[in-house]
Amino acid sequence: MTSSLRRYLPILDWGRSYDSAALTSDLVAAVIVTIMLIPQSLAYALLAGLPPEAGIYASIAPILLYAIFGTSRALAVGPVAVVSLLTASAIGEVAEQGTAGYAVAALTLAGLSGAFLLALGVFRLGFLANFLSHPVIAGFITASGILIATSQVKHLLGIEAGGHTLIEMVHGILSHLGEISWITVAIGGGATAFLFWVRKGLKPLLLRMGASPLLADIGAKAGPVAAVVVTTLVVWLLDLGAAGVAIVGEVPQSLPPLTMPGLSPEHLRQLALPAVLISIIGFVESISVAQTLAAKKRQRIDPDQELIGLGAANLGAAFTGGYPVTGGFSRSVVNFDAGAETPAAGAFTAAGLAIAAVALTPLVYYLPNATLAATIVVAVLSLVDFGILKRTWTYSRGDFAAVAATILLTLALGVEIGVASGVVLSIALHLFKTSRPHVAEVGLVPGTHHFRNINRHDVTTDPSVVTLRIDESLYFVNARFLEDLILARAAETEELRHVVLMCSAVNEIDFSALESLEETNRRLGDMGIELHLSEVKGPVMDRLKTCHFLQDLTGRVFLSQYDAWRALARAEAERGAAAE
Amino acid sequence: MTSSLRRYLPILDWGRSYDSAALTSDLVAAVIVTIMLIPQSLAYALLAGLPPEAGIYASIAPILLYAIFGTSRALAVGPVAVVSLLTASAIGEVAEQGTAGYAVAALTLAGLSGAFLLALGVFRLGFLANFLSHPVIAGFITASGILIATSQVKHLLGIEAGGHTLIEMVHGILSHLGEISWITVAIGGGATAFLFWVRKGLKPLLLRMGASPLLADIGAKAGPVAAVVVTTLVVWLLDLGAAGVAIVGEVPQSLPPLTMPGLSPEHLRQLALPAVLISIIGFVESISVAQTLAAKKRQRIDPDQELIGLGAANLGAAFTGGYPVTGGFSRSVVNFDAGAETPAAGAFTAAGLAIAAVALTPLVYYLPNATLAATIVVAVLSLVDFGILKRTWTYSRGDFAAVAATILLTLALGVEIGVASGVVLSIALHLFKTSRPHVAEVGLVPGTHHFRNINRHDVTTDPSVVTLRIDESLYFVNARFLEDLILARAAETEELRHVVLMCSAVNEIDFSALESLEETNRRLGDMGIELHLSEVKGPVMDRLKTCHFLQDLTGRVFLSQYDAWRALARAEAERGAAAE
Repeated sequence: MTSSLRRYLPILDWGRSYDSAALTSDLVAAVIVTIMLIPQSLAYALLAGLPPEAGIYASIAPILLYAIFGTSRALAVGPVAVVSLLTASAIGEVAEQGTAGYAVAALTLAGLSGAFLLALGVFRLGFLANFLSHPVIAGFITASGILIATSQVKHLLGIEAGGHTLIEMVHGILSHLGEISWITVAIGGGATAFLFWVRKGLKPLLLRMGASPLLADIGAKAGPVAAVVVTTLVVWLLDLGAAGVAIVGEVPQSLPPLTMPGLSPEHLRQLALPAVLISIIGFVESISVAQTLAAKKRQRIDPDQELIGLGAANLGAAFTGGYPVTGGFSRSVVNFDAGAETPAAGAFTAAGLAIAAVALTPLVYYLPNATLAATIVVAVLSLVDFGILKRTWTYSRGDFAAVAATILLTLALGVEIGVASGVVLSIALHLFKTSRPHVAEVGLVPGTHHFRNINRHDVTTDPSVVTLRIDESLYFVNARFLEDLILARAAETEELRHVVLMCSAVNEIDFSALESLEETNRRLGDMGIELHLSEVKGPVMDRLKTCHFLQDLTGRVFLSQYDAWRALARAEAERGAAAE
Repeated sequence: MTSSLRRYLPILDWGRSYDSAALTSDLVAAVIVTIMLIPQSLAYALLAGLPPEAGIYASIAPILLYAIFGTSRALAVGPVAVVSLLTASAIGEVAEQGTAGYAVAALTLAGLSGAFLLALGVFRLGFLANFLSHPVIAGFITASGILIATSQVKHLLGIEAGGHTLIEMVHGILSHLGEISWITVAIGGGATAFLFWVRKGLKPLLLRMGASPLLADIGAKAGPVAAVVVTTLVVWLLDLGAAGVAIVGEVPQSLPPLTMPGLSPEHLRQLALPAVLISIIGFVESISVAQTLAAKKRQRIDPDQELIGLGAANLGAAFTGGYPVTGGFSRSVVNFDAGAETPAAGAFTAAGLAIAAVALTPLVYYLPNATLAATIVVAVLSLVDFGILKRTWTYSRGDFAAVAATILLTLALGVEIGVASGVVLSIALHLFKTSRPHVAEVGLVPGTHHFRNINRHDVTTDPSVVTLRIDESLYFVNARFLEDLILARAAETEELRHVVLMCSAVNEIDFSALESLEETNRRLGDMGIELHLSEVKGPVMDRLKTCHFLQDLTGRVFLSQYDAWRALARAEAERGAAAE
């Protein structure tokens, strides 16, 4: 009981050794992360098409719940760019942005995603996330970065435009170009340029000025806060809101409210698939970050427990006015670098954000949307990595095809179709690769007991015996290939009397492959040729013994290939050797 | 040029050695097959919901075209039960049975299917059919047999009823039970009982009476013709058509007409997916039959050329009033047993059917639908094989799950969803099996150069070196599993300094697995542990050399595991051995 409680509540582990040193580290980290999270949360809510407070609310309860159920000591859970984009895309299908229905759909999506993650965790199905190959994830993240940056151009230009695919967005922007607000362009452009400089130039500058690496890093990370403060002051002082600059406006001064996700069957049906997609992509992002950070301190992450932690966090978001969340890369790294020792740092961050939600929201009234858009653009462009195309091209054309297709389809048809196609293509390419396994015809290396490929080595063969070494497990995708190959080989040589399949590399024979072997045995039998097996692995042999194949086999099963050779071809081979 | 012509026109091969002996054999086979095909073609048209002549037309041009392009010498192409059912299910979605639109949709479906098969053949993509595992095919055929038999119950009872799933059909039958025509039941029941007796009892009886096996076989196969003749006479003589027995009625006396498939984008879109499904299932059925028969004469079937042959046959059906066709099991076996030597037998059969279409159609005016239904029921019930459940259960639970799901889903949700789910499930089960590859921690067998599993053998180990032997290719589905496993193992032992991956069974490392290895290398590096590889296969090594992995590797690549052991642990091991 206790150990199962501990499995589901990692807090019981780290909680009992908590001391004042850890408390100090966690508090420092929490202050730094809180300051960074305020503009980030507002910005990602904007990206998801939700009111700004949704971003803050989505960072409070989820962080607390993850602190109780999660296994990572440094992961910071909350809104992230890619999940915000996926949220906008999914709920844009069921409700109009800005309506109450839109916000409720976001809660529903978070609730579904939480329930799904929780179920995966309880049933220990975390391995399902592995069906996303790295090239697909890389392609998807790159394309998402481009889509997200493009989606923010309208805020930087001060125009209205929509669309979920690249073409729709570009078309929307072009058709509203006449409405550009040049003051907004100046603010957005200025903030973007500033933030790029902060990212590239400030840290080296601070280091050259003698700052410690940690301080230089925090200085660079504080860039968005500076941009927020300066542009808010400018808009307030010059009353630019009246001049047409879109601003955040009134944000309720309140702790996260208790909210209820919409549960209409229609909504649930429409949002179920997007919720699954968001959950899996969020999980993959989160676990990558968590494992990277944990490895640095030789800590372990339990993927199934992580699912439970993220599931609880998303359920928390659903009932407290948030939207789907996951472990974010930038916030977690800041948390880790700032010295967070335990998940308590997350709890303190949540408290900091709660204070901000109650006390600081009036301060962001004049914050221009263009500044938030600038922070998003600068953050996501660092996700864009076309280098993956070159790296996969050099290494493997199949992987390249998966990346390229994922990028193109995500840009052209939207995030959901893009990532789904990438997954299907990866699996299809894998099946294709294993559908034509390497099969070598082997012969005896003279003077040894070894058998080698007859095309590469000088080996002894016998025209009445063909030995084929199969370098792959046999299953339905390659079963017929092998059958065709054996029968084709058998039709070639008139003197052939024995076919030996050398199974040293066959880890599995599934039912389809078994039926194919039975058919091969039958057909070779019709041709007057015996089929033999050699070097069959133990587990494979155990399974073959449960069925009739071994009784029906026209030939025998040999423990070693050399035994097979001695029994079937020795006389011939010796005669051949004597004649040489 | 000539050889590529020959590849696409197998008729050039067998045509030049054609002689009068082959001619005689082919003619005899054609007469027997023609007699059998007349009732069968009418029956399958009924099953597809099409007018009876469509079944005959679908047997004429397709047979001729297959004779030119196909590679099997005995395959008989035309309507078959499963494809007829799939046709009814697909075109039932787009048009009302009995309307002109329904027949046009059948032509469109044949045209799409023909084009798809042709494309697969030209691009040599025949291997795609392998994605259907044997258990899925077996489950699908069994469920289809039940569905087909159930769909004919209405004809045997003389009632109107519809539905594409088992529940719909049973519900339809039950709600029309009040309208039963008892004369129809008598005819249908009598024909069914007679045909079952013919199948089980007639052949042994004929053999006991001294008939030759061939004659006994032909006698048994002629059963349906006898049932047709007798029941037609009874209906005609007693004028049972007026008494409410549904009859075939007027069938146009004509050669196959020239027809044009519907090409509206809406139709094409709706029928594209069913056409793909019909093509693949038809191809799988056809190639199985063709290969079984070819093996008996040591002939070869070229799967890609078969696709071209079947594609041409379906295009032929589309333009001559037919519907989707494929190589049928029963007709091909009859053709083979009756002595067909070359595809010319098919051409003669086509001529026979053409004569029948022109001259004999008035004779089937009084043929009761119940008799045709009886021939279908008796034929398809032989396809039903629940034994596959038991066989797969004994051999492999994964394969059993695939069969059971395919049967249940086909019966409950219809043929298309059933077979699609079966395919997805088979692939998912395969991915799941390879997602947790067997990994053994190995140690040195004292006094040898061999390494064996430390849990099974008494081997020498060293606490500072862990060697893991990986028994599977590394790709995205299992990449993270291995990463987790290595890191978990590394976190266990404090003294650990070296991890060696023994790659003798790794046939491939894809890009995801490469990135996982890079990440593992980095994380182990953070823990102060070196990562080494041993026994990497040539092609895998070639690929690794194209990227940075080998430069970044903290450890080394050893040609043999023994080299690795000597370099990393020998001193330790010797010290250990001396102390013992």
